[in-house]
Amino acid sequence: MNEIDNIISGFFEPTIREYIGKIPVGKRLRSRLICAIAKNSDRRFFLSAIVETIHLASLLHDDIIDDAKTRRGAPSVFVTDGAKKAILVGDIFYASAFAKLTEFESAIAEVIGKAVAKLAYGEFLDVKLSESFNADRERYENMIYLKTAALIEASCEAAAILANKDRESFRNFGRLLGVAFQTIDDVLDITHNETELGKPSLNDLSEGKVTLPLIDFYYAADKNNQKKLISLFGKTITKSDADWLRSVLEQSGSIARSRQYAKELLDDAKSLVAGDDELSSVADALIRRIK
Amino acid sequence: MNEIDNIISGFFEPTIREYIGKIPVGKRLRSRLICAIAKNSDRRFFLSAIVETIHLASLLHDDIIDDAKTRRGAPSVFVTDGAKKAILVGDIFYASAFAKLTEFESAIAEVIGKAVAKLAYGEFLDVKLSESFNADRERYENMIYLKTAALIEASCEAAAILANKDRESFRNFGRLLGVAFQTIDDVLDITHNETELGKPSLNDLSEGKVTLPLIDFYYAADKNNQKKLISLFGKTITKSDADWLRSVLEQSGSIARSRQYAKELLDDAKSLVAGDDELSSVADALIRRIK
Repeated sequence: MNEIDNIISGFFEPTIREYIGKIPVGKRLRSRLICAIAKNSDRRFFLSAIVETIHLASLLHDDIIDDAKTRRGAPSVFVTDGAKKAILVGDIFYASAFAKLTEFESAIAEVIGKAVAKLAYGEFLDVKLSESFNADRERYENMIYLKTAALIEASCEAAAILANKDRESFRNFGRLLGVAFQTIDDVLDITHNETELGKPSLNDLSEGKVTLPLIDFYYAADKNNQKKLISLFGKTITKSDADWLRSVLEQSGSIARSRQYAKELLDDAKSLVAGDDELSSVADALIRRIK
Repeated sequence: MNEIDNIISGFFEPTIREYIGKIPVGKRLRSRLICAIAKNSDRRFFLSAIVETIHLASLLHDDIIDDAKTRRGAPSVFVTDGAKKAILVGDIFYASAFAKLTEFESAIAEVIGKAVAKLAYGEFLDVKLSESFNADRERYENMIYLKTAALIEASCEAAAILANKDRESFRNFGRLLGVAFQTIDDVLDITHNETELGKPSLNDLSEGKVTLPLIDFYYAADKNNQKKLISLFGKTITKSDADWLRSVLEQSGSIARSRQYAKELLDDAKSLVAGDDELSSVADALIRRIK
């Protein structure tokens, strides 16, 4: 991935470049997918660098929106450098990525450009949904498609265009993988502890985010448990609330059903790229996270 | 301009569309320039709508950055709807504009895309310069070129590409007009009152923005006045400070020299489009603002 880092660095003046290192990155899912799909194209690293820059921009703004003071255990940029600079560096990242995107054919620029509009709209809907307890699964799923899956979907589709492969299959592969990725994240927020997550656990409900396992539990629960669940919405979760929540989510089968749902999405995704070991292994690695 | 408004509205879902009306717009300088330069192109309104959407996005974020609670007398979106939504709606505006931009030839998308990166970098430098008293005219001018002039420059250049006119002359026309526009704004902050401005007057120095007339005065002043000027940096300006500041800025000739500088820029700009009455009248209208 060194090559991609070098390209990203080259996009910026030194004063801006220093912010790249301040944002801890994960497994670089989007780049891995682009490089696997367009492995024969010389431009795969350049496209990856653009998409990772967009992703970094979204992280800078997301952390402000979610008031997330740490990311993977490190303090967020808006904490160390202030919200003003985090907003502006995010804007610079977005705009520089777009400017570079014009060096690709317009179909690629269009696919990525539309995905960024979806991503931002998804974040907006996330904030709207968090204003009250949302138990509507369809609205939740539409939001996570926009917020998380759209850029992964677009990365796969753009890589397919670059590699002269079938756009539709790879777009669908990316969308399924993206929704599964978010669902797994939602499960981990409940089942894992702060050390494992690099951020507070059971944080979603405190932040007003009624995720898939919680929606599932809401419909499986009796009136008393529904009431108790709603009473925790947007509140700091105490130790005894956390114990209760984890235990009812396990006992009701909501965790298991959410895990199962993610696995089915990933199986569907794999069937679209049957025979491609590299892409299948990306899907398998996601499944292993929730085992 | 109704046609442009309709196109902008069409870019968004209803929940986002409502934010357009919450941002008071000015004279739509960028659209006026695009429509005047590309008056024979059917796509001038579409390009104008994209650039105005970018401009709206920058206003949403600028108001947060500058903590500007009102715009043209109306409360800012981050005041009425919160900073989170103002950040995200700004992101949606930026990204939607970029996605639409891919419908133009890549030279146009590139010119506008690069300008947005400059604009965001200019805002960043503005924040950096505001951290201490900056008396370096060159650094200030580079910042206002990026922050204000770059998108006006790019609007003119993109319109010239659309109309098959000479890119370089129109780019230079736009840059000169843009720097003049900001210089005039800097003068008005000093010479006009709150009612005329639709925002507090003498606000720049309070916000840490050492503008051109203030830099000019700094070099014209004796040690005592330099000290007094620096002492007001970043402070709320009292009535007696304001009276002092206005009077020394007039007496030192700093206001007159800044006005003169803006006029010269506009004269140079007009000479590049000699014979084009519509563009000349845009420049003349700017000159009239500081008379």
